[in-house]
Amino acid sequence: MHLDDICSPGDIRGLDQEGLEELAAELRQRIIGTVARNGGHLASNLGVVELTIALHRAFDFTRDKLIWDVGHQCYAHKLLTGRQADFSSLRQFGGLAGFPRREESAYDAFDTGHASTAISAAVGYARARQLQGGDYHVVAVVGDGALTGGMCYEALNDAGSNKLRMIVVLNDNGMSISRNVGAVSGYLTRLRAGKGWFDAKRVVSGWLKRIPVVGMGLYRLFHRVKNSIRNIFVQDRLFDTLGFHYLGPVDGSDIQGLERLFRRAKQQDEPVLIHVVTRKGSGYTQAEDHPSRLHGTPPFNVETGEPLAPSAVSMSQAAGDELLRLARQDQRVAAVTAAMTAGTGLKGFARELPDRLYDVGIAEEHAVTMAAGLAAGGARPFVAIYDTFMQRAYDQTLHDVCLQRLPVCFLMDRAGLSEDGETHHGLYGIAFMRQLPGMTVLCASSRAELRAMMRYAMEQSGPVAIRYAKEDESGRKDEKITPYTPVWQSMRDGGDAAILACGGILWEAIRAAELLDQQGIRCAVYNASCVCPLDEKTLSSIKSPLITLEEGVLAGGFGSAVSQYCAAYGRPGPALMLGIEGLCMTQGDRALQLKAHQLDAASIADRVRKWKENR
Amino acid sequence: MHLDDICSPGDIRGLDQEGLEELAAELRQRIIGTVARNGGHLASNLGVVELTIALHRAFDFTRDKLIWDVGHQCYAHKLLTGRQADFSSLRQFGGLAGFPRREESAYDAFDTGHASTAISAAVGYARARQLQGGDYHVVAVVGDGALTGGMCYEALNDAGSNKLRMIVVLNDNGMSISRNVGAVSGYLTRLRAGKGWFDAKRVVSGWLKRIPVVGMGLYRLFHRVKNSIRNIFVQDRLFDTLGFHYLGPVDGSDIQGLERLFRRAKQQDEPVLIHVVTRKGSGYTQAEDHPSRLHGTPPFNVETGEPLAPSAVSMSQAAGDELLRLARQDQRVAAVTAAMTAGTGLKGFARELPDRLYDVGIAEEHAVTMAAGLAAGGARPFVAIYDTFMQRAYDQTLHDVCLQRLPVCFLMDRAGLSEDGETHHGLYGIAFMRQLPGMTVLCASSRAELRAMMRYAMEQSGPVAIRYAKEDESGRKDEKITPYTPVWQSMRDGGDAAILACGGILWEAIRAAELLDQQGIRCAVYNASCVCPLDEKTLSSIKSPLITLEEGVLAGGFGSAVSQYCAAYGRPGPALMLGIEGLCMTQGDRALQLKAHQLDAASIADRVRKWKENR
Repeated sequence: MHLDDICSPGDIRGLDQEGLEELAAELRQRIIGTVARNGGHLASNLGVVELTIALHRAFDFTRDKLIWDVGHQCYAHKLLTGRQADFSSLRQFGGLAGFPRREESAYDAFDTGHASTAISAAVGYARARQLQGGDYHVVAVVGDGALTGGMCYEALNDAGSNKLRMIVVLNDNGMSISRNVGAVSGYLTRLRAGKGWFDAKRVVSGWLKRIPVVGMGLYRLFHRVKNSIRNIFVQDRLFDTLGFHYLGPVDGSDIQGLERLFRRAKQQDEPVLIHVVTRKGSGYTQAEDHPSRLHGTPPFNVETGEPLAPSAVSMSQAAGDELLRLARQDQRVAAVTAAMTAGTGLKGFARELPDRLYDVGIAEEHAVTMAAGLAAGGARPFVAIYDTFMQRAYDQTLHDVCLQRLPVCFLMDRAGLSEDGETHHGLYGIAFMRQLPGMTVLCASSRAELRAMMRYAMEQSGPVAIRYAKEDESGRKDEKITPYTPVWQSMRDGGDAAILACGGILWEAIRAAELLDQQGIRCAVYNASCVCPLDEKTLSSIKSPLITLEEGVLAGGFGSAVSQYCAAYGRPGPALMLGIEGLCMTQGDRALQLKAHQLDAASIADRVRKWKENR
Repeated sequence: MHLDDICSPGDIRGLDQEGLEELAAELRQRIIGTVARNGGHLASNLGVVELTIALHRAFDFTRDKLIWDVGHQCYAHKLLTGRQADFSSLRQFGGLAGFPRREESAYDAFDTGHASTAISAAVGYARARQLQGGDYHVVAVVGDGALTGGMCYEALNDAGSNKLRMIVVLNDNGMSISRNVGAVSGYLTRLRAGKGWFDAKRVVSGWLKRIPVVGMGLYRLFHRVKNSIRNIFVQDRLFDTLGFHYLGPVDGSDIQGLERLFRRAKQQDEPVLIHVVTRKGSGYTQAEDHPSRLHGTPPFNVETGEPLAPSAVSMSQAAGDELLRLARQDQRVAAVTAAMTAGTGLKGFARELPDRLYDVGIAEEHAVTMAAGLAAGGARPFVAIYDTFMQRAYDQTLHDVCLQRLPVCFLMDRAGLSEDGETHHGLYGIAFMRQLPGMTVLCASSRAELRAMMRYAMEQSGPVAIRYAKEDESGRKDEKITPYTPVWQSMRDGGDAAILACGGILWEAIRAAELLDQQGIRCAVYNASCVCPLDEKTLSSIKSPLITLEEGVLAGGFGSAVSQYCAAYGRPGPALMLGIEGLCMTQGDRALQLKAHQLDAASIADRVRKWKENR
């Protein structure tokens, strides 16, 4: 049976071992081919192919509920649940999502994207079942990395202490930290559920000690926190203590072994933890060797594993470079990140100043309050967290940083629309940051501006948030860095309207103004780099109608701030407030998304022209 | 030496046992007397008198750092650090804060209020010390209840895996769950640090089994989650596993025993956990017998422990009563709370339908995502969490509830100014909720309206947040509950201006309008009960100048929403936007706070009059 012949997961239940192996191979091939073309998450998906097959054989997810934590490992699940035909559109504008989406399929029980939510959601499902007298099974699949998030522990404690019938599958790839240790899974194949884990542990410890020190040094630096928690959960059996019935460990490539364990778990009337040892990138050498690089990847060459296009001009890298420069100059400077050292451009910092980079794991709440402690103790912490993940630390930013007016600088990377879609858009950062007392909110439109803003933040006595997109769209090369002042720079003149644009979308505003020029409409454009506080002096000097532009939600955002200012000073509010309205469910190419939201240069020009005509 | 003679904590280091006992007695007396007059936290403060004395004898907090988790147990600390003379102003407007405040004293190393932050802050301090080559000690005092919060675990894991030199004092009153068990502390007095905990554990388990079942039933219901985590940390030694050096247990009333342990901890070059067994309410019979009622209390009679004034008309009680009514009618209805069953009026619900109330401990993040799971599974969860604590679940509300448009109803209690001051004000709820996609945000101004809104929420297919103050200020009795519609009700007419007021502050607006009447200024008043979406139909029908009024921050709040609406429709923005500007550091009596922010009826009238004069 071929992948394309599978109408529903029921169809794979009759397959024999050979058929299963063929299916797994075909799934891998389809995943590798699609991600090579579209970009996406590779290593994590390859690691769970057999696990996914086994889940769909042992459970019936037309009634049972399957919740993927984070959700970036759901590709095989999508391919087995009637979405093969659309799979080529994965992560593309208008195509299949890269994460589970209830709107896409009844097989997706819960939308995920941010880490550490699945066990909580599963607890909710288990209780909904109780309330309504249902009898379905609830399964949450959680990676070992997500366990650093405090929510997991809150949820495990709740489930365990209340003896809720539910199943947590621990997708543990913490062991495949080097090729040497990959041998472990071979060893585990020979173990069976219920047999002694302690033997395995002893053997594994022996292997671990034989790993060359050179590789482990850097590895340990980044993964200390994650490994610690992994050990506590797995080796010290925190699951038992928390009230979970522990089954495993089981080799994640052994479909029948997995199935047997799942069927055993279904018999239990208590919370069950199934410990599955998987291997990131399994079955594709490039991904096995470079699981980190091929975790989330742009389109790549299947032969080499190398990206097809040269990487874009990265704002993250500029942030990382500048932070290292600042840290060299000033002993008080420290970097804080939440499992995103590479993503936020801090690899160079980590190499040169490992003792001053604090990677706390997927634990944004702790990251921010810890940074508040650093600042209270006289340090100058820079907290590098994606805009979307900073949502996790709203209270800590308000309660621990702002109320004490502490000089913490937030580097809010990936601001604006995200290829990954609704769970990953950085659209709320302006709205939720500008309402916090004493917070300076800056939006950088280029690398040079970002670096200048970081230097500016160093001089402030209170908190500063700097938001910036993934890529520098300015088209400028090696620009000179001039001291930043919170003044809105005039980018061009024009008397018909003044477009106030903040962040990377500034460049769309400038292109829109150029298009409008051709139609005889003259728009000034300002780089509204400082959205909180507003540059009231410049604002008061602008006499033409105002148009605000932001790559973020309108409710409470930059346009809202300008309209409040206008009301307070008794002048007409913005003639147009351009940004994201309501739920933003688009994904894929940023240009296409901008167009869909009428925020690309052509649409902006069009909207301004229509406004001008209707005045 | 008497309390009033103590200039600095150094003065108590020379005291002998008798002197220490006198000091402890005097501290208790002062705390009981002050809280009886001013209201405040009693049981928790009485429980840590000796612990506080011992901390100040063993450490030098002119250089060492002391961080109180939650912070409501800092009264003895304030009395020993030069704040005796001002102590009578505790929690009063303009007086001493009920929580540690860096602005108040150099002895307060970190401001706290929300639970579970202290270990994170301590990790930050320990790292700031490393960066700057300091050698001070960092001490975090954490109650066993706060350990249900995931942040604690994120921080412990970080500290433990990085072997940071710091001291966590576990203030464990989990054992004093009944008077019988109080005997434990007597037993523990005879134990010494380093001696076997396991003996103690066995003995205690025996005692526990002898506690009459009747008391334990309800106790277990509320404290299951907390006890579970306590057991894991304490009995199963999770601290050890997390990399902490464990010292204890020690009797929290034994000053010298505590001191010896603290001095031992100071010698360690690794993270240390000191397990202190305390007793809530210790030394005051009424508080020992009713630690829950005398946890946070209004002014009370010292003889009886009973409140002096009859309790105010509680909005929480109305919410709890209505929820029970809804739950009786509809099997899908469930209550979710985060360690606030009593505070949110759910005791009756808990008694009648214990299986449908989920108290997850101090774990707002999990509470909200768990509720999303409940709703995805077909249930109708009501999440009762104070406005200020909902800040913790901003991401979960957005990512897990709103993006999936799930019908979760948020009961945001204690909206508006809080007696407890800046860490507890519920001032951000409108601003952070209205920006979330698809969220309906309602503000209830009376019990009847609140109950009607809850019924309305049951009929919606998406999320609804209902905000309400602690007390019903409407002055209305047993009002008839009429079906709620999201239409702004006209409370009175007037052509000079229209005051749009949301929530409990509506009644100030009405009184202000009456005052203005006397000056010949006629103001309409609308109950802007639905702040998101706005009632655009009513808004468009109002032709007079608009004045918005909210008990919340202006940045991004209700006035901001109205100004955005006005800009979008090309009409003049609100003539006045009344609310809280910037940092709100007031505490104490609500009326005095309203006055300080010019939000009481007289100030509102004054501001409207001035605006009218200057037009």
